[in-house]
Amino acid sequence: MSAVSTAVKQDDITAQMLGLGKHARAAARVLASAATEAKNKALLAAADALDTDRRTILAANEKDMTAGKSSGLSGSFLDRLELNDTRIDAIIEGLRAIAALPDPVGDTIAEWDVPSGLHIKRVRTPLGVIGVIFESRPNVTADAAALCLKSGNAAILRGGSDSFYSSRAIHAAFIKGLKAAGLPETAVQIVPTTDRAAVGEMLKGLNGAIDVIVPRGGKGLVGRVQSEARVPVFAHLEGICHVYVDRSADRDMAVDVTLNAKMRRTSICGAAETLLIHKDIAATHLPAILAALQGAGCEIRGDEQVMRYASEVVPVTEADWTTEYGEPIIAVKIVDSLDAAIEHIETFSSHHTEAIIAEDEAARDRFFARVDSAILLHNASTQFADGGEFGMGAEIGIATGKMHARGPVGLEQLTSFKYLVLGNGQTRP
Amino acid sequence: MSAVSTAVKQDDITAQMLGLGKHARAAARVLASAATEAKNKALLAAADALDTDRRTILAANEKDMTAGKSSGLSGSFLDRLELNDTRIDAIIEGLRAIAALPDPVGDTIAEWDVPSGLHIKRVRTPLGVIGVIFESRPNVTADAAALCLKSGNAAILRGGSDSFYSSRAIHAAFIKGLKAAGLPETAVQIVPTTDRAAVGEMLKGLNGAIDVIVPRGGKGLVGRVQSEARVPVFAHLEGICHVYVDRSADRDMAVDVTLNAKMRRTSICGAAETLLIHKDIAATHLPAILAALQGAGCEIRGDEQVMRYASEVVPVTEADWTTEYGEPIIAVKIVDSLDAAIEHIETFSSHHTEAIIAEDEAARDRFFARVDSAILLHNASTQFADGGEFGMGAEIGIATGKMHARGPVGLEQLTSFKYLVLGNGQTRP
Repeated sequence: MSAVSTAVKQDDITAQMLGLGKHARAAARVLASAATEAKNKALLAAADALDTDRRTILAANEKDMTAGKSSGLSGSFLDRLELNDTRIDAIIEGLRAIAALPDPVGDTIAEWDVPSGLHIKRVRTPLGVIGVIFESRPNVTADAAALCLKSGNAAILRGGSDSFYSSRAIHAAFIKGLKAAGLPETAVQIVPTTDRAAVGEMLKGLNGAIDVIVPRGGKGLVGRVQSEARVPVFAHLEGICHVYVDRSADRDMAVDVTLNAKMRRTSICGAAETLLIHKDIAATHLPAILAALQGAGCEIRGDEQVMRYASEVVPVTEADWTTEYGEPIIAVKIVDSLDAAIEHIETFSSHHTEAIIAEDEAARDRFFARVDSAILLHNASTQFADGGEFGMGAEIGIATGKMHARGPVGLEQLTSFKYLVLGNGQTRP
Repeated sequence: MSAVSTAVKQDDITAQMLGLGKHARAAARVLASAATEAKNKALLAAADALDTDRRTILAANEKDMTAGKSSGLSGSFLDRLELNDTRIDAIIEGLRAIAALPDPVGDTIAEWDVPSGLHIKRVRTPLGVIGVIFESRPNVTADAAALCLKSGNAAILRGGSDSFYSSRAIHAAFIKGLKAAGLPETAVQIVPTTDRAAVGEMLKGLNGAIDVIVPRGGKGLVGRVQSEARVPVFAHLEGICHVYVDRSADRDMAVDVTLNAKMRRTSICGAAETLLIHKDIAATHLPAILAALQGAGCEIRGDEQVMRYASEVVPVTEADWTTEYGEPIIAVKIVDSLDAAIEHIETFSSHHTEAIIAEDEAARDRFFARVDSAILLHNASTQFADGGEFGMGAEIGIATGKMHARGPVGLEQLTSFKYLVLGNGQTRP
């Protein structure tokens, strides 16, 4: 392509994306005061439309799968891309579950009186427009659209190019739900091009039309979004989660929790990657923990000290402390003290989730006060780092930033607030 | 200066600023778990040091004032720059007042149980490192340092070059307070150069060392910070605040509140700039409102409709709807309906603060639901848009963004949160 036609194409995409932004902003104004009943009606009607349009959606997915196979996508990639009746059922159930959740918009977060006689209320409002950039999982189209809609936000969705037809088919069904409820069809828009320049436009914020970006996908996507976005981002780049077994830990609990934290599902962001254990109980606790892990098929990486307590330990390197394996591998370190464990975590953690196993409440409190991660657990598995387990009903992701949303991002975290002040004629002296 | 020496100088400033960032980050870790008593002791000792060092501070200010006069700074600029005993007393009182406020760090914002038996708490934590960029008012040095310290955050302060010596002298006194309390001196650092490149470095975030930037100053500063910052910003660019007098408004209240909203202090961001009034009560209410405003020395700008209700009305232009006068001038518009008022506000407001004067609660509720500004008041003056009036004790500014902090930014708004999860050995099924 010549330089001139590339520039023209870029201009076209810019104009197209800015148009999406304007429509989203207008829809957001309508959504901000939309009745809960209308939003729920849209979600339930969208669920019904997904059921009715099942064949169309599966045919679209077949088109993506065929293209994916011929372009040599990996097996795990194709697995994420594939839709079938069970997966469509799960999407439908997801929409119905979000319809059943309480509406956060209009909730009073706090209220108080001040000496001037004014009564002040802080109430939840939608954020406005949320940009969701995701990869191959087509179900994100419906999940993200539903969470944004229920929290009163307009959404601009940009799915991966490999799931282009699947996402569009799901989006088309979702639009039927919006129509059925009399809500603007532009409340949920999908980027109609696979050109990557569209992502760049979203990251620039579409002239102020996008309030926040949520990336859903691998480290490459999240890293690009975090480094390039000119608007706030709710995300975590990685989950390098730690389990610290204190000198006061119960041995059986340490075995159970560590095993679960690492091995229940090794691919999720809340899976443990590093085990830290106090030197005073290494001899009593570590052999049982390592045996349980190895018995479940986990590779152990450690130094010579660790090697005393198990065979087949792979020598650990500095790089292990900052690696999110996502696989049955764990790095193990014997530490001299609680503070040494805290120091290790503060140095290497991604500030997502860490657990302490301890009977000593003073140790727990010190760990809780001094470790600066989104989620800290006492005597529980790091795999509980999940919006559903937190009682939030559903989450759009987990954030490790400290601004606005931190930890699981559910409906409440997709809202802002405003102050409503009630007077009876007050003037300020 | 040659290109080479400019580059060297830039490298020096970059290195120097990154050094400040590292020190701040290290101090932030100490501050995050510092006892309330230590923070209060530092604030009270800093207040004492400001008192003891009064002559030194006034001498430094004299140096700034002399330079300012000879470089031809305006009278209002010099007024903001000037320190005297009364103003130093006010700074001292400010520090003592912040010491007396409750410590937000460690507060439990919410807690609940989930079916797995886990108990989940959301507790406040400091944000980390706050960059404060301000202009000529030297008192901001102490106010901002105190608010950041009390909320457990490290601060990097960058004052205006015209108040360089005054700010450094105040900072030196503040450091004595930190020392007296055994807290790191690097908890509050001041940029030791007037080179504007230092601001550019802060806006880039000092390699992730700065968590949020708070600009304190005029529209030029705030605009630059908002457009260039790669880290979150708590600020408002301008306060184009509206008073809407509904058809159901009480006339006397409408007169009192409008007069106060515009004229109590015309220079503050919560001062009203535009009056919207429902056509049905223009004949009965508007003459009294305009007479009160004109009687207080306010210029009225309006169209021919408005001119029917007062003499000496200056023709309004489209630009008036987006002008923050900061002076005794008000733009007036007669609207056909509540919805027309809402539409006008949503089109022209800076989303800072708006008031509705109405006896009709349905009108108030519609206004509250549909106007998307940080602060909405019913039957009260817009000049109440202030952290002190909101009972927050002190504020570092007012934010119009929707992320994290919105409205007055006090101690609570300078915190983030983390989840503390209490279990008794739970593993996730």
